[in-house]
Amino acid sequence: MNDETLTTATDWVARGDSVALATVVRTYRSAPRPIGSVFAVSSSGEMAGSVSGGCVEGDIYGAAQAMFADNTSAPRLIHYGISDDLALEVGLACGGELWVSLDHFRARPVLRRGAIATIFNGDQNGEGLVFDADSGALTGTLAGDLRTIAEQTIADAVAREESIALDLEGELVLFVESIHPAPRVIVVGAVDTAEALCRMTKTLGWRTAIVDPRAKFATPERIPSADVILTSWPDKAYPELALEAADHLVVLTHDPKIDDPAISLALNLDVGYVGALGSRRTQEKRNARLRESGNTDEQIGRIYGPVGLDIGAHSPAETAVAILAEIIGYRSGRGGQPLKHTTGRIHPSEETAS
Amino acid sequence: MNDETLTTATDWVARGDSVALATVVRTYRSAPRPIGSVFAVSSSGEMAGSVSGGCVEGDIYGAAQAMFADNTSAPRLIHYGISDDLALEVGLACGGELWVSLDHFRARPVLRRGAIATIFNGDQNGEGLVFDADSGALTGTLAGDLRTIAEQTIADAVAREESIALDLEGELVLFVESIHPAPRVIVVGAVDTAEALCRMTKTLGWRTAIVDPRAKFATPERIPSADVILTSWPDKAYPELALEAADHLVVLTHDPKIDDPAISLALNLDVGYVGALGSRRTQEKRNARLRESGNTDEQIGRIYGPVGLDIGAHSPAETAVAILAEIIGYRSGRGGQPLKHTTGRIHPSEETAS
Repeated sequence: MNDETLTTATDWVARGDSVALATVVRTYRSAPRPIGSVFAVSSSGEMAGSVSGGCVEGDIYGAAQAMFADNTSAPRLIHYGISDDLALEVGLACGGELWVSLDHFRARPVLRRGAIATIFNGDQNGEGLVFDADSGALTGTLAGDLRTIAEQTIADAVAREESIALDLEGELVLFVESIHPAPRVIVVGAVDTAEALCRMTKTLGWRTAIVDPRAKFATPERIPSADVILTSWPDKAYPELALEAADHLVVLTHDPKIDDPAISLALNLDVGYVGALGSRRTQEKRNARLRESGNTDEQIGRIYGPVGLDIGAHSPAETAVAILAEIIGYRSGRGGQPLKHTTGRIHPSEETAS
Repeated sequence: MNDETLTTATDWVARGDSVALATVVRTYRSAPRPIGSVFAVSSSGEMAGSVSGGCVEGDIYGAAQAMFADNTSAPRLIHYGISDDLALEVGLACGGELWVSLDHFRARPVLRRGAIATIFNGDQNGEGLVFDADSGALTGTLAGDLRTIAEQTIADAVAREESIALDLEGELVLFVESIHPAPRVIVVGAVDTAEALCRMTKTLGWRTAIVDPRAKFATPERIPSADVILTSWPDKAYPELALEAADHLVVLTHDPKIDDPAISLALNLDVGYVGALGSRRTQEKRNARLRESGNTDEQIGRIYGPVGLDIGAHSPAETAVAILAEIIGYRSGRGGQPLKHTTGRIHPSEETAS
């Protein structure tokens, strides 16, 4: 959605308009759009994207028109606190709050994975840093202690794949937007659980790919929800998919000829989540084979097998829920027990009002 | 899918055809269709439904034609063991096996919730029992020790909502088909997580309903995946939905005016799974209010709050996975930890070859 809005904004600039870009940099309680959501306004009066359920866009539209009138405007950070009455009307849970940055739209750095840090208010208002995690390059104009803080926060944001807003002294706010491809689940084995898993994974906005050398299995008719289907063995498919450590691999074929190389190659690429279907006895026999073919105990210990959380899943769709829940838990380092029986924070990072 | 096949079979009978009905009564390893799946053949040569990925229907078609030719045929139980070579071609994981019953199609007892038991082979071949769990009525012709065994197995099948096949002495096989409405998830609060939850729940083939008195929230535009949307308070909506103990309730509004009666009424209807969104502090305050308004500690202890498994869910879709995984685990009495870290059986009931 952001991509569309930014493309539209680029088009408006290309034809000569001034364009203002509003970005959600912080939310508290039930804000309707996540951090990083954008809303663009052209000097011709057009709008694209959204930063709320519609309740604050009108105000931002006005602020953007004022910005076009005053060419020297620096970036602004605007706070919206939503009263309970308004909340009920516009679809916000009571007490939602959001902070929106407003600035002239500029071409954004092209990043596959990394972060963009911007400081609001103070002497360096609008200055920032850009970190490209693929090349390791760090560029930008932010200086002094703020640069040190920004570098640390960028490292956090990249590791957690989450945008971060920090309150600093003197009303300074540091916003670090995390840029990362949507998480990807690679499923080896075009079995019935694969379709259920791809369908549920897509619901999260994540990407999916199916790998299966068996042409009768690996068809779009059997797995219509998959983004990509490769009728190949893992050694051919992984390079084609550019499989990397950040991916999540789920191996479902039950056939050692396919499962063993699928797992072994992934362990050697240091793919973080490698899940494998099969009974406990299947796991033992497979682990023995993987050990014989040269995988270390440490590598084998990383396999999530039997794959999925212990929820008594039975049907393919239930198994898909068990697997996807385990992957989400893996990403946030959580154990999967009912929250009722645990203590501590519910979300991996929860914004709180200062 | 079964319903369609049975309707088609009824139509064939109505126009004067003989009809044979094949039913999957037992599976071992990766059989492509679950227990209870049906395949019908008419004496005019038509087919409907399926009991496998297509590999055994041809054989059943032939057996059905033989049955039409020989009017005295008793029910048969046919075993299909699938070789690895065939498995690869037809979409079965290697070694899948299934047992299929074949009999003349008869009008089935109309049950909302209950079980149908049938014995195969031996003196009472084809005799059975029908249990209606709503009325408690048990009818049928099965006699002696077999009746006792069938009654016990019916109780198990109804409690687990799962069909059961039992091997008995002398090649007897008891098949108990569980009849039950698809599980239902009632969501109070037409918030963003509600749509994600309804969408994922539908993927399981379950039913969903939304309850929210706020007309701006409770719209098909906001929650397109819900089967039913009631713009009402819980005290009106629950009777309309015929809410019962077998339902699963998830309360999401964050608003005590709606959440408190939604939970309190459900606890007093003995709804088994009552999940409630909100921070740990919200739970404490809500529990205190529920206690004050007359709910017992035992009732309050049954609430799943904070709702969902501890997987670090953040987005609405991730939260939906956490909730649905908890509900599946609740239904099978499982804890939710990664299977990797648990011991024992993976599925709540797993068919094994004798």
